[in-house]
Amino acid sequence: MEEINNIEVVPCTESDYLKPFRVHYNQNGTKKSWDFMRTHDSVSVLIFNTTLHCFVLVKQFRPAVYMCEWEKSKTQPPQSAEKNEEGAAEAEAAAPASESQEGQSRGVTYELCAGLVDKPDLSLEEIARQEVLEECGYDVPASKLKRITSYRSGVGVTGSKQTMFYAEVSEDNCVSAGGGEPREGELIEVVKVPLHEAMTFAYDERIPKTMGVIFSFIWFHNNMSPKYKISTNV
Amino acid sequence: MEEINNIEVVPCTESDYLKPFRVHYNQNGTKKSWDFMRTHDSVSVLIFNTTLHCFVLVKQFRPAVYMCEWEKSKTQPPQSAEKNEEGAAEAEAAAPASESQEGQSRGVTYELCAGLVDKPDLSLEEIARQEVLEECGYDVPASKLKRITSYRSGVGVTGSKQTMFYAEVSEDNCVSAGGGEPREGELIEVVKVPLHEAMTFAYDERIPKTMGVIFSFIWFHNNMSPKYKISTNV
Repeated sequence: MEEINNIEVVPCTESDYLKPFRVHYNQNGTKKSWDFMRTHDSVSVLIFNTTLHCFVLVKQFRPAVYMCEWEKSKTQPPQSAEKNEEGAAEAEAAAPASESQEGQSRGVTYELCAGLVDKPDLSLEEIARQEVLEECGYDVPASKLKRITSYRSGVGVTGSKQTMFYAEVSEDNCVSAGGGEPREGELIEVVKVPLHEAMTFAYDERIPKTMGVIFSFIWFHNNMSPKYKISTNV
Repeated sequence: MEEINNIEVVPCTESDYLKPFRVHYNQNGTKKSWDFMRTHDSVSVLIFNTTLHCFVLVKQFRPAVYMCEWEKSKTQPPQSAEKNEEGAAEAEAAAPASESQEGQSRGVTYELCAGLVDKPDLSLEEIARQEVLEECGYDVPASKLKRITSYRSGVGVTGSKQTMFYAEVSEDNCVSAGGGEPREGELIEVVKVPLHEAMTFAYDERIPKTMGVIFSFIWFHNNMSPKYKISTNV
Protein backbone atom coordinates (compact mmCIF):
# COMPACT_ATOMS: atom_id res chain seq x y z
CA MET A 1 0.00 0.00 0.00
CA GLU A 2 1.40 3.37 -1.04
CA GLU A 3 1.19 6.18 1.48
CA ILE A 4 0.64 9.43 -0.41
CA ASN A 5 0.34 12.76 1.38
CA ASN A 6 1.39 16.44 1.39
CA ILE A 7 -0.07 16.92 -2.07
CA GLU A 8 0.36 20.33 -3.66
CA VAL A 9 -0.54 21.19 -7.25
CA VAL A 10 0.96 24.20 -9.02
CA PRO A 11 0.75 25.44 -12.61
CA CYS A 12 3.77 24.36 -14.58
CA THR A 13 5.22 27.08 -16.78
CA GLU A 14 8.49 25.29 -17.62
CA SER A 15 8.75 21.51 -17.65
CA ASP A 16 11.66 19.33 -18.67
CA TYR A 17 9.16 16.58 -19.45
CA LEU A 18 6.17 18.32 -21.00
CA LYS A 19 7.05 20.75 -23.77
CA PRO A 20 4.03 21.93 -25.73
CA PHE A 21 4.53 23.07 -29.33
CA ARG A 22 2.07 24.42 -31.86
CA VAL A 23 2.15 23.42 -35.51
CA HIS A 24 0.43 25.54 -38.16
CA TYR A 25 -0.26 23.76 -41.44
CA ASN A 26 -2.47 23.55 -44.50
CA GLN A 27 -4.55 20.39 -44.91
CA ASN A 28 -6.05 20.07 -48.40
CA GLY A 29 -5.98 23.87 -48.64
CA THR A 30 -7.53 24.54 -45.21
CA LYS A 31 -5.41 26.42 -42.65
CA LYS A 32 -5.25 24.52 -39.36
CA SER A 33 -3.18 24.35 -36.21
CA TRP A 34 -2.60 21.75 -33.50
CA ASP A 35 -0.90 21.71 -30.10
CA PHE A 36 1.30 18.71 -29.46
CA MET A 37 4.21 17.54 -27.33
CA ARG A 38 7.52 16.01 -28.25
CA THR A 39 8.28 12.72 -26.62
CA HIS A 40 10.26 9.55 -27.20
CA ASP A 41 8.98 6.32 -28.71
CA SER A 42 8.66 3.47 -26.26
CA VAL A 43 8.88 -0.29 -25.85
CA SER A 44 6.80 -2.59 -23.68
CA VAL A 45 7.40 -6.24 -22.83
CA LEU A 46 5.00 -9.05 -21.94
CA ILE A 47 7.08 -11.27 -19.63
CA PHE A 48 6.08 -14.89 -19.07
CA ASN A 49 7.86 -16.86 -16.37
CA THR A 50 7.99 -20.46 -17.62
CA THR A 51 9.09 -21.84 -14.24
CA LEU A 52 6.22 -20.36 -12.25
CA HIS A 53 3.72 -20.22 -15.14
CA CYS A 54 2.88 -16.60 -14.48
CA PHE A 55 3.04 -13.22 -16.16
CA VAL A 56 5.38 -10.63 -14.66
CA LEU A 57 3.93 -7.12 -14.48
CA VAL A 58 5.03 -3.88 -12.83
CA LYS A 59 2.85 -1.97 -10.42
CA GLN A 60 3.55 1.66 -9.65
CA PHE A 61 2.04 4.85 -8.31
CA ARG A 62 1.12 7.13 -11.21
CA PRO A 63 0.68 10.76 -10.10
CA ALA A 64 -1.26 11.59 -13.30
CA VAL A 65 -3.79 8.81 -12.61
CA TYR A 66 -4.09 9.89 -8.96
CA MET A 67 -4.71 13.51 -9.96
CA CYS A 68 -7.27 12.42 -12.56
CA GLU A 69 -9.23 10.64 -9.80
CA TRP A 70 -8.80 13.64 -7.52
CA GLU A 71 -10.28 15.93 -10.19
CA LYS A 72 -13.27 13.62 -10.49
CA SER A 73 -13.82 13.51 -6.72
CA LYS A 74 -13.97 17.31 -6.80
CA THR A 75 -16.58 17.52 -9.54
CA GLN A 76 -18.75 14.70 -8.25
CA PRO A 77 -20.96 15.73 -5.36
CA PRO A 78 -20.26 13.97 -2.06
CA GLN A 79 -23.36 12.33 -0.61
CA SER A 80 -23.93 15.08 1.96
CA ALA A 81 -23.22 18.02 -0.38
CA GLU A 82 -25.82 20.75 -0.56
CA LYS A 83 -26.95 21.98 -3.95
CA ASN A 84 -26.24 25.62 -4.78
CA GLU A 85 -28.51 27.91 -6.81
CA GLU A 86 -27.45 26.54 -10.17
CA GLY A 87 -28.23 23.07 -8.95
CA ALA A 88 -24.54 22.15 -8.98
CA ALA A 89 -23.13 20.54 -5.89
CA GLU A 90 -20.20 22.12 -4.10
CA ALA A 91 -17.50 19.70 -3.11
CA GLU A 92 -14.34 20.30 -1.16
CA ALA A 93 -11.08 19.78 -3.05
CA ALA A 94 -10.01 17.03 -0.71
CA ALA A 95 -7.52 14.40 -1.75
CA PRO A 96 -9.17 11.02 -2.26
CA ALA A 97 -8.61 8.33 0.32
CA SER A 98 -5.45 6.37 -0.27
CA GLU A 99 -7.47 3.22 -0.83
CA SER A 100 -10.42 2.81 -3.19
CA GLN A 101 -13.57 0.80 -2.44
CA GLU A 102 -12.04 -2.10 -4.33
CA GLY A 103 -9.03 -2.22 -2.01
CA GLN A 104 -6.64 -0.87 -4.65
CA SER A 105 -4.21 1.91 -3.78
CA ARG A 106 -5.46 5.00 -5.57
CA GLY A 107 -3.29 6.06 -8.49
CA VAL A 108 -1.50 2.70 -8.61
CA THR A 109 -1.69 0.89 -11.95
CA TYR A 110 -0.63 -2.51 -13.28
CA GLU A 111 1.40 -2.22 -16.46
CA LEU A 112 3.69 -4.13 -18.76
CA CYS A 113 7.39 -3.63 -18.15
CA ALA A 114 8.17 -0.66 -20.41
CA GLY A 115 10.56 2.16 -21.16
CA LEU A 116 11.40 5.06 -23.43
CA VAL A 117 13.50 4.71 -26.56
CA ASP A 118 15.99 7.41 -25.56
CA LYS A 119 19.31 5.72 -26.36
CA PRO A 120 19.93 6.15 -30.10
CA ASP A 121 22.80 3.62 -30.11
CA LEU A 122 20.67 0.73 -28.87
CA SER A 123 18.21 -1.41 -30.80
CA LEU A 124 14.61 -1.66 -29.59
CA GLU A 125 15.39 -5.20 -28.43
CA GLU A 126 18.39 -3.98 -26.39
CA ILE A 127 16.32 -1.24 -24.74
CA ALA A 128 13.56 -3.75 -23.97
CA ARG A 129 16.17 -6.13 -22.53
CA GLN A 130 17.50 -3.41 -20.20
CA GLU A 131 13.98 -2.60 -18.95
CA VAL A 132 13.28 -6.28 -18.21
CA LEU A 133 16.48 -6.37 -16.17
CA GLU A 134 16.09 -3.03 -14.36
CA GLU A 135 12.37 -3.19 -13.65
CA CYS A 136 11.80 -6.91 -13.17
CA GLY A 137 15.23 -8.40 -12.42
CA TYR A 138 15.40 -10.97 -15.24
CA ASP A 139 18.54 -11.13 -17.36
CA VAL A 140 17.66 -12.44 -20.82
CA PRO A 141 19.54 -11.92 -24.10
CA ALA A 142 18.00 -9.42 -26.53
CA SER A 143 17.81 -12.22 -29.10
CA LYS A 144 15.16 -13.96 -26.98
CA LEU A 145 12.76 -11.03 -27.31
CA LYS A 146 9.99 -11.72 -29.82
CA ARG A 147 8.40 -8.69 -31.49
CA ILE A 148 4.60 -8.81 -31.14
CA THR A 149 3.63 -5.66 -33.04
CA SER A 150 3.78 -1.86 -32.98
CA TYR A 151 1.16 0.92 -32.92
CA ARG A 152 0.71 4.62 -32.26
CA SER A 153 0.12 5.70 -28.70
CA GLY A 154 -1.34 9.06 -27.75
CA VAL A 155 -2.32 10.00 -31.31
CA GLY A 156 -3.78 13.29 -30.15
CA VAL A 157 -0.88 14.66 -28.11
CA THR A 158 2.43 12.87 -28.65
CA GLY A 159 1.95 10.67 -31.71
CA SER A 160 4.74 8.39 -30.55
CA LYS A 161 5.18 4.77 -31.53
CA GLN A 162 5.26 1.86 -29.11
CA THR A 163 6.70 -1.53 -30.00
CA MET A 164 5.57 -4.52 -27.92
CA PHE A 165 7.77 -7.55 -27.26
CA TYR A 166 7.26 -10.96 -25.69
CA ALA A 167 9.94 -12.43 -23.41
CA GLU A 168 9.98 -15.88 -21.87
CA VAL A 169 12.03 -16.01 -18.70
CA SER A 170 12.77 -18.70 -16.16
CA GLU A 171 13.65 -18.48 -12.48
CA ASP A 172 17.26 -19.15 -13.55
CA ASN A 173 17.23 -15.76 -15.34
CA CYS A 174 16.24 -13.96 -12.14
CA VAL A 175 19.32 -12.02 -11.00
CA SER A 176 17.78 -9.26 -8.82
CA ALA A 177 14.53 -8.11 -7.29
CA GLY A 178 14.01 -5.50 -10.01
CA GLY A 179 12.13 -2.38 -8.93
CA GLY A 180 13.58 0.14 -11.36
CA GLU A 181 16.36 2.66 -10.96
CA PRO A 182 16.06 4.28 -7.52
CA ARG A 183 18.28 7.15 -8.69
CA GLU A 184 15.69 7.90 -11.37
CA GLY A 185 13.09 7.99 -8.62
CA GLU A 186 11.39 4.78 -9.75
CA LEU A 187 9.42 2.94 -7.07
CA ILE A 188 8.26 -0.12 -8.94
CA GLU A 189 6.76 -3.29 -7.52
CA VAL A 190 7.12 -6.51 -9.48
CA VAL A 191 3.82 -8.43 -9.57
CA LYS A 192 3.18 -11.98 -10.73
CA VAL A 193 -0.16 -12.93 -12.26
CA PRO A 194 -0.71 -16.73 -12.46
CA LEU A 195 -1.56 -17.93 -15.95
CA HIS A 196 -4.87 -19.46 -14.89
CA GLU A 197 -6.03 -16.11 -13.46
CA ALA A 198 -4.83 -13.99 -16.37
CA MET A 199 -8.07 -13.55 -18.33
CA THR A 200 -10.09 -12.79 -15.19
CA PHE A 201 -7.42 -10.25 -14.23
CA ALA A 202 -7.48 -8.71 -17.72
CA TYR A 203 -11.21 -8.02 -17.74
CA ASP A 204 -11.66 -7.10 -14.06
CA GLU A 205 -12.27 -3.35 -14.33
CA ARG A 206 -11.68 -2.90 -10.59
CA ILE A 207 -8.00 -3.61 -11.22
CA PRO A 208 -6.52 -0.44 -12.75
CA LYS A 209 -4.34 -1.31 -15.71
CA THR A 210 -3.25 -0.26 -19.17
CA MET A 211 -4.68 -1.60 -22.43
CA GLY A 212 -1.27 -3.16 -23.07
CA VAL A 213 -1.84 -5.63 -20.23
CA ILE A 214 -5.24 -6.69 -21.57
CA PHE A 215 -4.13 -6.89 -25.20
CA SER A 216 -0.95 -8.82 -24.46
CA PHE A 217 -2.71 -11.39 -22.23
CA ILE A 218 -5.18 -12.05 -25.05
CA TRP A 219 -2.37 -12.17 -27.60
CA PHE A 220 -0.68 -14.82 -25.43
CA HIS A 221 -3.92 -16.77 -25.16
CA ASN A 222 -4.36 -16.80 -28.93
CA ASN A 223 -0.74 -17.35 -29.94
CA MET A 224 0.93 -19.33 -27.15
CA SER A 225 -1.97 -21.62 -26.28
CA PRO A 226 -0.48 -24.59 -28.15
CA LYS A 227 2.43 -24.35 -25.67
CA TYR A 228 0.68 -23.26 -22.49
CA LYS A 229 -2.83 -23.73 -21.21
CA ILE A 230 -4.73 -20.61 -20.17
CA SER A 231 -8.18 -20.43 -18.63
CA THR A 232 -10.70 -18.86 -20.99
CA ASN A 233 -13.90 -18.82 -18.97
CA VAL A 234 -14.54 -15.08 -19.37
CA MET B 1 -4.45 11.21 -49.86
CA GLU B 2 -4.05 14.19 -47.53
CA GLU B 3 -2.15 17.17 -48.91
CA ILE B 4 -0.18 18.75 -46.07
CA ASN B 5 1.98 21.82 -46.59
CA ASN B 6 3.01 25.25 -45.21
CA ILE B 7 4.14 23.63 -41.96
CA GLU B 8 5.40 25.95 -39.25
CA VAL B 9 6.25 24.87 -35.69
CA VAL B 10 6.35 27.37 -32.82
CA PRO B 11 6.82 26.95 -29.06
CA CYS B 12 3.47 26.98 -27.31
CA THR B 13 3.44 29.07 -24.13
CA GLU B 14 -0.35 29.07 -23.66
CA SER B 15 -2.54 26.28 -24.94
CA ASP B 16 -6.26 25.72 -24.46
CA TYR B 17 -5.65 22.00 -24.97
CA LEU B 18 -2.35 21.25 -23.22
CA LYS B 19 -2.13 22.63 -19.69
CA PRO B 20 0.86 21.27 -17.76
CA PHE B 21 0.65 21.15 -13.96
CA ARG B 22 3.18 20.04 -11.40
CA VAL B 23 2.20 18.01 -8.34
CA HIS B 24 4.48 17.84 -5.30
CA TYR B 25 3.78 14.93 -2.95
CA ASN B 26 5.23 12.54 -0.40
CA GLN B 27 5.31 8.85 -1.36
CA ASN B 28 6.07 6.61 1.62
CA GLY B 29 7.95 9.51 3.20
CA THR B 30 9.97 10.43 0.09
CA LYS B 31 9.43 13.90 -1.40
CA LYS B 32 8.65 13.66 -5.12
CA SER B 33 7.13 15.73 -7.90
CA TRP B 34 5.58 14.96 -11.29
CA ASP B 35 4.47 17.01 -14.28
CA PHE B 36 1.11 16.03 -15.73
CA MET B 37 -1.75 17.38 -17.82
CA ARG B 38 -5.44 17.57 -17.17
CA THR B 39 -7.64 15.97 -19.77
CA HIS B 40 -11.02 14.32 -20.15
CA ASP B 41 -11.76 10.61 -20.00
CA SER B 42 -12.71 9.08 -23.32
CA VAL B 43 -14.81 6.40 -25.01
CA SER B 44 -14.01 4.30 -28.06
CA VAL B 45 -16.31 2.06 -30.07
CA LEU B 46 -15.63 -1.04 -32.15
CA ILE B 47 -18.31 -0.89 -34.85
CA PHE B 48 -19.28 -4.03 -36.76
CA ASN B 49 -21.54 -3.71 -39.79
CA THR B 50 -23.65 -6.89 -39.88
CA THR B 51 -24.95 -6.20 -43.40
CA LEU B 52 -21.54 -5.81 -45.03
CA HIS B 53 -19.63 -8.02 -42.54
CA CYS B 54 -16.97 -5.40 -41.96
CA PHE B 55 -15.54 -3.26 -39.20
CA VAL B 56 -16.03 0.49 -39.43
CA LEU B 57 -12.96 2.56 -38.50
CA VAL B 58 -12.06 6.21 -38.78
CA LYS B 59 -8.97 7.45 -40.56
CA GLN B 60 -7.62 10.90 -39.94
CA PHE B 61 -4.55 13.09 -40.21
CA ARG B 62 -2.88 13.36 -36.80
CA PRO B 63 -0.51 16.35 -36.58
CA ALA B 64 1.25 14.86 -33.54
CA VAL B 65 2.02 11.64 -35.42
CA TYR B 66 3.20 13.62 -38.45
CA MET B 67 5.50 15.76 -36.30
CA CYS B 68 6.85 12.68 -34.55
CA GLU B 69 7.88 11.26 -37.94
CA TRP B 70 9.29 14.63 -38.96
CA GLU B 71 11.46 14.72 -35.83
CA LYS B 72 12.80 11.27 -36.69
CA SER B 73 13.57 12.21 -40.28
CA LYS B 74 15.63 15.11 -38.93
CA THR B 75 17.73 12.97 -36.60
CA GLN B 76 18.26 10.14 -39.06
CA PRO B 77 20.93 10.96 -41.64
CA PRO B 78 19.74 11.07 -45.24
CA GLN B 79 21.67 8.70 -47.49
CA SER B 80 23.69 11.46 -49.13
CA ALA B 81 24.43 13.40 -45.95
CA GLU B 82 28.03 14.26 -45.23
CA LYS B 83 29.44 13.56 -41.79
CA ASN B 84 30.58 16.55 -39.78
CA GLU B 85 33.58 16.63 -37.43
CA GLU B 86 31.79 14.88 -34.59
CA GLY B 87 30.82 12.09 -36.95
CA ALA B 88 27.17 13.12 -36.80
CA ALA B 89 25.32 13.57 -40.03
CA GLU B 90 23.70 16.90 -40.80
CA ALA B 91 20.18 16.61 -42.04
CA GLU B 92 17.92 19.33 -43.31
CA ALA B 93 14.76 19.91 -41.30
CA ALA B 94 12.63 19.19 -44.31
CA ALA B 95 9.08 17.96 -43.99
CA PRO B 96 8.75 14.30 -44.91
CA ALA B 97 7.12 13.39 -48.18
CA SER B 98 3.37 13.26 -47.96
CA GLU B 99 3.43 9.55 -48.76
CA SER B 100 5.51 6.90 -47.01
CA GLN B 101 7.22 3.99 -48.72
CA GLU B 102 4.25 1.83 -47.84
CA GLY B 103 1.87 4.09 -49.73
CA GLN B 104 0.25 5.43 -46.54
CA SER B 105 -0.30 9.17 -46.11
CA ARG B 106 2.20 10.30 -43.48
CA GLY B 107 0.60 11.20 -40.17
CA VAL B 108 -2.67 9.46 -41.05
CA THR B 109 -3.79 6.77 -38.59
CA TYR B 110 -6.58 4.20 -38.47
CA GLU B 111 -8.48 4.35 -35.18
CA LEU B 112 -11.66 3.24 -33.49
CA CYS B 113 -14.48 5.76 -33.49
CA ALA B 114 -13.84 7.68 -30.27
CA GLY B 115 -14.51 10.86 -28.33
CA LEU B 116 -13.92 12.75 -25.10
CA VAL B 117 -16.22 12.46 -22.10
CA ASP B 118 -16.84 16.20 -21.82
CA LYS B 119 -20.63 16.30 -21.33
CA PRO B 120 -21.31 15.64 -17.63
CA ASP B 121 -25.06 15.15 -18.22
CA LEU B 122 -24.62 12.23 -20.61
CA SER B 123 -23.83 8.60 -19.84
CA LEU B 124 -20.77 6.99 -21.40
CA GLU B 125 -23.14 5.05 -23.68
CA GLU B 126 -24.85 8.26 -24.82
CA ILE B 127 -21.51 9.91 -25.60
CA ALA B 128 -20.38 6.80 -27.49
CA ARG B 129 -23.69 6.79 -29.42
CA GLN B 130 -23.17 10.42 -30.49
CA GLU B 131 -19.63 9.68 -31.72
CA VAL B 132 -20.86 6.72 -33.79
CA LEU B 133 -23.43 9.02 -35.39
CA GLU B 134 -21.19 12.06 -35.93
CA GLU B 135 -18.04 10.26 -37.02
CA CYS B 136 -19.43 7.24 -38.85
CA GLY B 137 -23.03 8.12 -39.71
CA TYR B 138 -24.79 5.20 -37.98
CA ASP B 139 -27.76 5.95 -35.74
CA VAL B 140 -28.03 3.25 -33.07
CA PRO B 141 -29.71 3.47 -29.66
CA ALA B 142 -27.36 3.75 -26.66
CA SER B 143 -28.91 0.57 -25.28
CA LYS B 144 -27.33 -1.40 -28.15
CA LEU B 145 -23.81 -0.48 -27.04
CA LYS B 146 -22.07 -3.33 -25.23
CA ARG B 147 -19.32 -2.37 -22.79
CA ILE B 148 -16.10 -4.30 -23.55
CA THR B 149 -13.86 -3.02 -20.76
CA SER B 150 -12.00 0.05 -19.46
CA TYR B 151 -8.35 0.88 -18.81
CA ARG B 152 -5.99 3.76 -18.15
CA SER B 153 -4.56 5.56 -21.15
CA GLY B 154 -1.48 7.75 -21.00
CA VAL B 155 -0.54 6.73 -17.45
CA GLY B 156 2.54 8.96 -17.53
CA VAL B 157 1.01 12.24 -18.65
CA THR B 158 -2.80 12.36 -18.44
CA GLY B 159 -3.84 9.33 -16.40
CA SER B 160 -7.27 9.39 -18.00
CA LYS B 161 -9.62 6.43 -18.32
CA GLN B 162 -10.95 5.07 -21.59
CA THR B 163 -14.01 2.85 -21.82
CA MET B 164 -14.39 0.67 -24.91
CA PHE B 165 -17.76 -0.32 -26.37
CA TYR B 166 -18.94 -2.68 -29.11
CA ALA B 167 -21.72 -1.66 -31.46
CA GLU B 168 -23.38 -3.78 -34.10
CA VAL B 169 -24.87 -1.70 -36.89
CA SER B 170 -26.64 -2.53 -40.14
CA GLU B 171 -26.90 -0.60 -43.38
CA ASP B 172 -30.42 0.36 -42.26
CA ASN B 173 -28.82 2.36 -39.40
CA CYS B 174 -26.71 4.39 -41.84
CA VAL B 175 -28.22 7.89 -41.91
CA SER B 176 -25.30 10.01 -43.10
CA ALA B 177 -21.78 9.79 -44.48
CA GLY B 178 -20.24 10.60 -41.06
CA GLY B 179 -16.94 12.42 -41.16
CA GLY B 180 -17.10 14.27 -37.86
CA GLU B 181 -18.10 17.82 -37.06
CA PRO B 182 -16.65 20.14 -39.73
CA ARG B 183 -17.18 23.12 -37.41
CA GLU B 184 -14.89 21.42 -34.90
CA GLY B 185 -12.33 21.11 -37.70
CA GLU B 186 -12.67 17.34 -37.93
CA LEU B 187 -11.67 15.84 -41.27
CA ILE B 188 -12.47 12.19 -40.73
CA GLU B 189 -12.69 9.46 -43.34
CA VAL B 190 -14.86 6.43 -42.60
CA VAL B 191 -13.05 3.21 -43.54
CA LYS B 192 -14.46 -0.31 -43.78
CA VAL B 193 -12.26 -3.32 -43.04
CA PRO B 194 -13.78 -6.63 -44.24
CA LEU B 195 -14.05 -9.24 -41.50
CA HIS B 196 -11.90 -11.77 -43.38
CA GLU B 197 -9.05 -9.24 -43.65
CA ALA B 198 -9.26 -8.00 -40.06
CA MET B 199 -6.49 -10.03 -38.43
CA THR B 200 -4.05 -9.38 -41.27
CA PHE B 201 -4.91 -5.67 -41.01
CA ALA B 202 -4.42 -5.73 -37.22
CA TYR B 203 -0.89 -7.14 -37.34
CA ASP B 204 0.34 -5.33 -40.50
CA GLU B 205 2.77 -2.83 -38.97
CA ARG B 206 2.90 -0.85 -42.24
CA ILE B 207 -0.67 0.28 -41.52
CA PRO B 208 -0.46 2.98 -38.82
CA LYS B 209 -3.05 2.37 -36.14
CA THR B 210 -3.80 2.52 -32.44
CA MET B 211 -3.60 -0.41 -30.05
CA GLY B 212 -7.38 -0.09 -29.64
CA VAL B 213 -7.89 -1.31 -33.21
CA ILE B 214 -5.67 -4.35 -32.69
CA PHE B 215 -7.10 -5.24 -29.28
CA SER B 216 -10.73 -4.84 -30.32
CA PHE B 217 -10.33 -6.95 -33.48
CA ILE B 218 -8.86 -9.75 -31.35
CA TRP B 219 -11.58 -9.29 -28.73
CA PHE B 220 -14.16 -9.71 -31.51
CA HIS B 221 -12.40 -12.82 -32.78
CA ASN B 222 -12.41 -14.39 -29.34
CA ASN B 223 -15.88 -13.33 -28.21
CA MET B 224 -18.02 -13.02 -31.33
CA SER B 225 -16.63 -16.00 -33.24
CA PRO B 226 -19.64 -18.20 -32.41
CA LYS B 227 -21.74 -15.64 -34.33
CA TYR B 228 -19.35 -14.54 -37.06
CA LYS B 229 -16.47 -16.27 -38.76
CA ILE B 230 -13.12 -14.46 -38.81
CA SER B 231 -9.93 -15.55 -40.52
CA THR B 232 -7.21 -16.46 -38.03
CA ASN B 233 -4.26 -17.37 -40.21
CA VAL B 234 -1.85 -14.92 -38.60
